[in-house]
Amino acid sequence: MKVVNLAEKLAQFDAHWQPKVVADYNGNDIMVVKFQGEFPFHEHPDTDDLFLVLAGEVLLDVEEETHRLGPGELFVVPKGVRHRPRAEREAQVLLIEPRNTPNTGDPATAAVKERI
Amino acid sequence: MKVVNLAEKLAQFDAHWQPKVVADYNGNDIMVVKFQGEFPFHEHPDTDDLFLVLAGEVLLDVEEETHRLGPGELFVVPKGVRHRPRAEREAQVLLIEPRNTPNTGDPATAAVKERI
Repeated sequence: MKVVNLAEKLAQFDAHWQPKVVADYNGNDIMVVKFQGEFPFHEHPDTDDLFLVLAGEVLLDVEEETHRLGPGELFVVPKGVRHRPRAEREAQVLLIEPRNTPNTGDPATAAVKERI
Repeated sequence: MKVVNLAEKLAQFDAHWQPKVVADYNGNDIMVVKFQGEFPFHEHPDTDDLFLVLAGEVLLDVEEETHRLGPGELFVVPKGVRHRPRAEREAQVLLIEPRNTPNTGDPATAAVKERI
């Protein structure tokens, strides 16, 4: 039980598309991640996917639409819905997914979610 | 499926200690709330309780300790742990709890969580 400062956590790494677990909530990973460039389209058949932008701008392609999210804006991609995050410049994001959810939707290609 | 701007949601109400539901994530309410003054000590026997401070400063009394949270800081109170949020001046907070969790820990005294 301790205070988690998101900016301090984000200062500990540079890699893009590598979510870092900073807290647990009822079996969910609370993560911070840096986005830059384009992630593959994917879906999570068993879970919603929550994105909260902390800094920068994220483009979220969700099926046929593109949503633009700035700081203080969140989006929940419902389970089974195909999506792809993008960022032209580096963006910082809070992510929530159930523990062990592969970030690409596929365990074979998923990032290891290190705890920091 | 739409972008949720937390500042816009927070501008829609003034009441303190009245969480407003702004999104759903896997059966959890994603809420914004304004804190000012002192909430009763309580606990949630069945769920963790996630607080992310968006603006202002929150004092979180957790058992015998007091934690001070500023903007961009989060705290997860584990299930069953007695706690009390306080704020000397108005603070704005993102809260996550499973749907229908009474904010006081007791359905008899809990706020109705309006969706906005």
